[in-house]
Amino acid sequence: MMVLITYDVNTETNAGKTRLRKVAKQCVNYGRRVQNSVFECVMDYGKCQEVKHILEKIIDKDKDSLRFYYLGNNYKSKIEHVGAKESFDVEGSLIV
Amino acid sequence: MMVLITYDVNTETNAGKTRLRKVAKQCVNYGRRVQNSVFECVMDYGKCQEVKHILEKIIDKDKDSLRFYYLGNNYKSKIEHVGAKESFDVEGSLIV
Repeated sequence: MMVLITYDVNTETNAGKTRLRKVAKQCVNYGRRVQNSVFECVMDYGKCQEVKHILEKIIDKDKDSLRFYYLGNNYKSKIEHVGAKESFDVEGSLIV
Repeated sequence: MMVLITYDVNTETNAGKTRLRKVAKQCVNYGRRVQNSVFECVMDYGKCQEVKHILEKIIDKDKDSLRFYYLGNNYKSKIEHVGAKESFDVEGSLIV
């Protein structure tokens, strides 16, 4: 199934910047980065629970936000893209 | 139906910052901001075409990215949240 993971990590502090890097680094292991804070992950239920558990341990639940969107197996017709295609450096900045 | 709108706007220039503000300002008219660059919009096909058209005119298609995810009518069970709830100021910064 396709699971979309989106996140907002508060980067006002250095600790926040570290959390952001860690979240992105983990998400890369599970899916494709399509925008700076948006990953599309094709995975089964077990993998999904795994990544959720990992991310929950990284974030500060009072400051950061994670959202999971379950798009099912027939996801291709449910996604539309406009504009620049994704191209990210390791720090997560969009390269244009 | 629920349409998720996510965007990455390149803000390296002042023109980019202006585009980002304009995109966010438009999205607010169509849905609920759940993360900095993520809006959940409950709307019909016509409204969806409308907002898509407006956003396409604002963004720089060589630099910015828009994605639309169609979650259908039974979307409530398809969305999961972890961590801080959304609270944004007008400029789109997460207030914690």
